[in-house]
Amino acid sequence: MEPFRVHILGCGSATPTLRHYPSAQLVETRGHVFMVDCGEGAQIQLRRTHIHFSKLEAVFITHLHGDHCFGLPGLITSFGLLNRAAALHIFAPAMYEEMFHAQIRMFAPHLSYELIFHGVDTTAVQMVYETKSLEISTIPLQHRIPCCGYLFREKPGLPHIRRDMIDFYKIPTCYINNIKNGMSWTTDDGETIPHERLVTPADPPRAYAYCSDTKYIPKLHTMLQGVTTLYHESTYCDDKAANAENHLHSTARQAAMVARDAHVRQLLIGHYSAGYTDNGLFLKEAKEVFDNTYLTNELAVFDV
Amino acid sequence: MEPFRVHILGCGSATPTLRHYPSAQLVETRGHVFMVDCGEGAQIQLRRTHIHFSKLEAVFITHLHGDHCFGLPGLITSFGLLNRAAALHIFAPAMYEEMFHAQIRMFAPHLSYELIFHGVDTTAVQMVYETKSLEISTIPLQHRIPCCGYLFREKPGLPHIRRDMIDFYKIPTCYINNIKNGMSWTTDDGETIPHERLVTPADPPRAYAYCSDTKYIPKLHTMLQGVTTLYHESTYCDDKAANAENHLHSTARQAAMVARDAHVRQLLIGHYSAGYTDNGLFLKEAKEVFDNTYLTNELAVFDV
Repeated sequence: MEPFRVHILGCGSATPTLRHYPSAQLVETRGHVFMVDCGEGAQIQLRRTHIHFSKLEAVFITHLHGDHCFGLPGLITSFGLLNRAAALHIFAPAMYEEMFHAQIRMFAPHLSYELIFHGVDTTAVQMVYETKSLEISTIPLQHRIPCCGYLFREKPGLPHIRRDMIDFYKIPTCYINNIKNGMSWTTDDGETIPHERLVTPADPPRAYAYCSDTKYIPKLHTMLQGVTTLYHESTYCDDKAANAENHLHSTARQAAMVARDAHVRQLLIGHYSAGYTDNGLFLKEAKEVFDNTYLTNELAVFDV
Repeated sequence: MEPFRVHILGCGSATPTLRHYPSAQLVETRGHVFMVDCGEGAQIQLRRTHIHFSKLEAVFITHLHGDHCFGLPGLITSFGLLNRAAALHIFAPAMYEEMFHAQIRMFAPHLSYELIFHGVDTTAVQMVYETKSLEISTIPLQHRIPCCGYLFREKPGLPHIRRDMIDFYKIPTCYINNIKNGMSWTTDDGETIPHERLVTPADPPRAYAYCSDTKYIPKLHTMLQGVTTLYHESTYCDDKAANAENHLHSTARQAAMVARDAHVRQLLIGHYSAGYTDNGLFLKEAKEVFDNTYLTNELAVFDV
């Protein structure tokens, strides 16, 4: 299977600590690299992954709290200093557009590359970007300011060729793409070998959903069908459930409830409040509801 | 002597590296703490100094290149999250004012404390802030965009009381302040003890000058009279003197020439180009001109 990975650049919440960077992740698949959120220091964390700056194709900002976007001006200007050539797409809540362009005019007026800003509607499920193999859509969330998550979903792939059958029937290489796309094979004797005998099924499409920041949304799972890996914020544990409610955040238990209801393969949690020094408590509470939960941590890498 | 210290928060230049944070320093004296420049990550480095956030009284920005100011929005919003009460003064080139307020409106609309923005004229020597014991002035510099350094100068202090003389003449404590301020003493026998015999001279005023970013200014020393510690940017070594000239930066040797001509006690250098992995070269070249030179490094502390 082609790699489809998430790199955690930062998983702390707004109040700074020496334990975590603020929110930022990389999503890497088939040579494409995307950033989701870009808290202060994201460019340094990107460097630590050893993924080359030039590979980054687009940045997706969930909302305009500083711990999710204050790293963006630095990232953009550094790319300019490094003479980036390829265009960079920025997706963010539409209300950011005017400020974004004003910041670029003031701080990065002579960039070596093109910046393409896409204002997103945080209230609707919309496909906002597409590659040959991937669709990226918004996930409306509920936070103190307009906010959406992002869903990275593989398109259905082609079936795998059965090499043994190709060899057995001596099918020339030039037909292989056709067979992957559904063609059957007729031998010189006139026998028809149905497509299904020449291939094994395609890999099931994988999907990664990034949901931060948000209050607990009981129906969120309905937007996460087919998601294999879910990142859901868990700013608090049960002891501070009132804080979660007041600040429109979630607890680890609530994150796990979403994962359980969405039938995902695994849950990643993060956006830990600075008030907790031991993140084990988040894991314990989440696992009580959904066992296959993992704590995110800076520079950890997860297969989707 | 009262402590008068500089804490290095970051001493790298614009292109990010894993070796250095971008420019930021703290100047600490008599309970007052000031920040000079505020590159990305400055708030985390501030935390690492264990100086409490609430102690910071004012931030002085030299110019609007990102490696000198992109940490400011994060610093300001974090102070809000921590329920800071005291006003915070921001000094920066006047052209930043509109953008500054727009950023605050968008990213930190409900701060718990007052922000007071002071636009400075980078082309003039002007006192911009004053405490009981300190004057802070601008130092016009020459860079690709408007830029000024900052000079932190102690006001002349009072002489020190000679405890032995006070005891000998049995002078009551209530007269000590008067004596410090110039009074002589007349004994019961009518003998006048002149002020000068009752005191030792005041400590000579110290001054710290922060000069970054700038091309080499041969006459800069004329603005640095009485400076005891000079920080002067040294982005390059001799091997890249042409880069220094083209980008209006300085070499280590040029920084040392300013220190030598200004007769400072010590020179601190930094703003190292990312192209150098061994900063020893900066030190070697500077010391050829001015021996008492020190390399800055993250979290190093220097007595002014």
